[in-house]
Amino acid sequence: MILKTIFLGLEAGGKSIVILNLDDAERLGVLSLGRVTIRFDEVEKTAIVHTSSKLIDSGRIGVCKKVWSDLGLSEGSEVEVEAAPFPDSLYFIRNKLNGRKLAHDEIREIVEDTVDEKLSDVELSAFVTALHSFGLDLDEATYLSLAMIETGRTMKLDGGPIVDKHSIGGVPGDKTTLLVVPLVAAAGLLIPKSSSRAITSPAGTADRAEVLMPVSLDLEEMRDVVERTGGCLVWGGSVHLAPADDIFVRVEYPLSIDPLLLPSIMSKKRAVGADLLVVDIPTGRGAKVKTIGEADLLAKDFMEIGSRLGIRVRCAVTYGEQPIGSAIGPALEAKEALEALMNRGSVVDLVDKATAIAGMILEMAGKTDGKAMAIELLRSGRAEEKMREIIAAQGGDPDIAPEDIAVGDERFTVRSDRGGSVLWINNSSVAEVAKFAGCPKDAGAGILLHRNIGDVVGEGEPLFTIIAERGSNLRRAQERLERVKVMGVGDRMEMLIHEVKERPVVKRSFTLDR
Amino acid sequence: MILKTIFLGLEAGGKSIVILNLDDAERLGVLSLGRVTIRFDEVEKTAIVHTSSKLIDSGRIGVCKKVWSDLGLSEGSEVEVEAAPFPDSLYFIRNKLNGRKLAHDEIREIVEDTVDEKLSDVELSAFVTALHSFGLDLDEATYLSLAMIETGRTMKLDGGPIVDKHSIGGVPGDKTTLLVVPLVAAAGLLIPKSSSRAITSPAGTADRAEVLMPVSLDLEEMRDVVERTGGCLVWGGSVHLAPADDIFVRVEYPLSIDPLLLPSIMSKKRAVGADLLVVDIPTGRGAKVKTIGEADLLAKDFMEIGSRLGIRVRCAVTYGEQPIGSAIGPALEAKEALEALMNRGSVVDLVDKATAIAGMILEMAGKTDGKAMAIELLRSGRAEEKMREIIAAQGGDPDIAPEDIAVGDERFTVRSDRGGSVLWINNSSVAEVAKFAGCPKDAGAGILLHRNIGDVVGEGEPLFTIIAERGSNLRRAQERLERVKVMGVGDRMEMLIHEVKERPVVKRSFTLDR
Repeated sequence: MILKTIFLGLEAGGKSIVILNLDDAERLGVLSLGRVTIRFDEVEKTAIVHTSSKLIDSGRIGVCKKVWSDLGLSEGSEVEVEAAPFPDSLYFIRNKLNGRKLAHDEIREIVEDTVDEKLSDVELSAFVTALHSFGLDLDEATYLSLAMIETGRTMKLDGGPIVDKHSIGGVPGDKTTLLVVPLVAAAGLLIPKSSSRAITSPAGTADRAEVLMPVSLDLEEMRDVVERTGGCLVWGGSVHLAPADDIFVRVEYPLSIDPLLLPSIMSKKRAVGADLLVVDIPTGRGAKVKTIGEADLLAKDFMEIGSRLGIRVRCAVTYGEQPIGSAIGPALEAKEALEALMNRGSVVDLVDKATAIAGMILEMAGKTDGKAMAIELLRSGRAEEKMREIIAAQGGDPDIAPEDIAVGDERFTVRSDRGGSVLWINNSSVAEVAKFAGCPKDAGAGILLHRNIGDVVGEGEPLFTIIAERGSNLRRAQERLERVKVMGVGDRMEMLIHEVKERPVVKRSFTLDR
Repeated sequence: MILKTIFLGLEAGGKSIVILNLDDAERLGVLSLGRVTIRFDEVEKTAIVHTSSKLIDSGRIGVCKKVWSDLGLSEGSEVEVEAAPFPDSLYFIRNKLNGRKLAHDEIREIVEDTVDEKLSDVELSAFVTALHSFGLDLDEATYLSLAMIETGRTMKLDGGPIVDKHSIGGVPGDKTTLLVVPLVAAAGLLIPKSSSRAITSPAGTADRAEVLMPVSLDLEEMRDVVERTGGCLVWGGSVHLAPADDIFVRVEYPLSIDPLLLPSIMSKKRAVGADLLVVDIPTGRGAKVKTIGEADLLAKDFMEIGSRLGIRVRCAVTYGEQPIGSAIGPALEAKEALEALMNRGSVVDLVDKATAIAGMILEMAGKTDGKAMAIELLRSGRAEEKMREIIAAQGGDPDIAPEDIAVGDERFTVRSDRGGSVLWINNSSVAEVAKFAGCPKDAGAGILLHRNIGDVVGEGEPLFTIIAERGSNLRRAQERLERVKVMGVGDRMEMLIHEVKERPVVKRSFTLDR
């Protein structure tokens, strides 16, 4: 069928999309979400079909930006259009929908077509949902990791061993990586660390690091920094290690599922050539993983996939029932981390966690008594020195002082309405309030905790302070406090947790950030 | 945040969609596929967000047709935009994704939001995929039926009993309904039959009936026809019995899954007030249901849901390994059905199937020996007379003769390259070739079978004829024959069915048409 083109001026997320008049589509024998082949000037292109009975007249075809430029069309070009079969990858997805295990080449084709934007949102969503519903076994997780590596960029560093650390996330204020990287690099190991920005949390490690130095480095710049300093703290998005992951994340977000957690993490570690890896699994009520048993099972999977990809993995199951340190929000956290590196203040839990994880890495690399070594590297100032080297290598100011870091000056302190002990801190409420205050976009926004679990507090004493860059955000965060409770204070454990009076709409907290 | 509007001129399938600049979206704290509330002139509207770093400048918001007109916007209007929570229905969908059973009010809210286009493709796809993966139990199927009825239109007829029939489809050439409706109506029962058009098959009952009479009646016209004649043959799409179904079908099609089969069928039957229902379940290799055991299980589900909805159901498990009659394609089938009603020709299987099903309905309505009664109604010409009444009432020509029905004059006959018996006919290949010939859009296209399974054929004798309205389609259908085999002829059962030499891409045939 010959149709005349109309430019839609639509990016459609990089997908190849055309809109056909419903009658033309019926004549071609394609339905909405089917495919057509479009031929123009001996170039051929397949696109996903949407139909409309009003927007596009019969005899015309609405064309999105991508197809338009790929075919070199102009307004009113005559193109030949015919029905095209569904891509093979869709048949593989359908198999998974029916509970079949996917083979290596099938997974590769699905991931390739994902990166090439050949699959519609409906198809991607079905794939992710089926992975979540039926689970993916270790073979599939390994193949997915490999396919994500093959469709992304990789880095080869000279020397070694190359080490890495990763937290599955979920605990607000976890700035451990900002200490672990300089600690490990100061011991002479290579740690090419890439991190994500916040997706559903108040701050990602990339957001925290960005307060201290530029993090949007490309892969060559990243390699250069690691070769000069032994470590780096860059944003994963700018090095394009796993472009498939960005697409899957987009679909996972509204669904609050994350079946690709393991392949996503492991593929990026393999892509930077890691030999040794420590995975942090924060555990407890309010963390992603609720029990130690579950954490151990997840650890087993990480170690097994690691061994298949040639990465030696150890896991740290860590206490995840409250924020790490007292600062939440990019700038506040960067400041707290820098202070800890400078041996200022006394953020006991942060220092303990960072030296424990750095110690595990050091021991994997053959050192004895890693934790003591890490503590000494911190105490001696060598970790701080290394951090300043990394900051300089990435283009930041090596002389940055904690006082230089700007934080918001709109503040509101919440005080306890009773005396007692802090019985619990709700991680997801902390995250929610911090986001209402402006995190992560307003780097200077966030929360400062004045009490941790177990601390004694008197009536009228401060529990935490909300910090914002703008008054409107501070007010939104304050309003939010009327609906969510951040800390529980009491003398004894009250036995009634929660009364259910009518059928609740269960809105589980979910952190996608990996 | 105040943003200036840009009109996108996009229908987006009736969905409320806006495009934000990536920076603005981050500032608002929403990601692609999240939601925002847009306020203008004291009217408020929630829309699904897409983000772009290039298409839309910061400070602007691209708005689709629906939001544009609902808010009465003009180019450059200043609207207030803020992050909105996900709709509750999405939380219910997430529960199903985690294998939880859905409650009645949860299902109602999902279906309502589906009809109101409040859910994105990603979310709808996840819902349909989760229903397919985890299955839906009888409670959920019943609630889905009820929700589809509540969100659609219903009909109340005086008198009764009101009867109905339905085939789950999958067998090409099944024009049984064109005989059953007049047979049952001629016996004095009310049968308000609505049917679908072809979605993935060469002809739906609505396409067949449309050759004889108009079928795009609205609900009032449909009721009028049934009140005057006792029966009707209308297209379900024009009476809007279950608008949710049209949306689910769109998503199910690329995925080749149909978890909503039962609710979809039963909701439409309840919507027209059916008291008694016979469900035809064609069974066998090449049909939707492969074995009698499976068919019985499906029958049990139909009967159970029927009893919950107040519909008495019986099921007919019928032979589905080859097409019914010899004609495939809207006009060819309408002609064959009209001839059978006129007692011309001898389409033994069609007449047997139609009188068996009509007989079951008659017996459910209290008649004795229904099949004999149905045969007599056919033989006596009373069924033909009733069909002509219905044709007249729907605005067709009551004197239509089989010879008046136009069929294509581009023809190609396939002959047997060996002598023997017809061992098998591949239903999905028959459907595929008929569609390449132009079905269902070209009503006069299709296939005429000259042999059925078990028939003896000599070398060079005709097996079937492909019929098309246009030469180009005939050639495409002929070319298709090189890749698919429609009939198998042999002397004996050859034991090797199929050799697998390399890993196959399994492309199962799938008929969505209900």
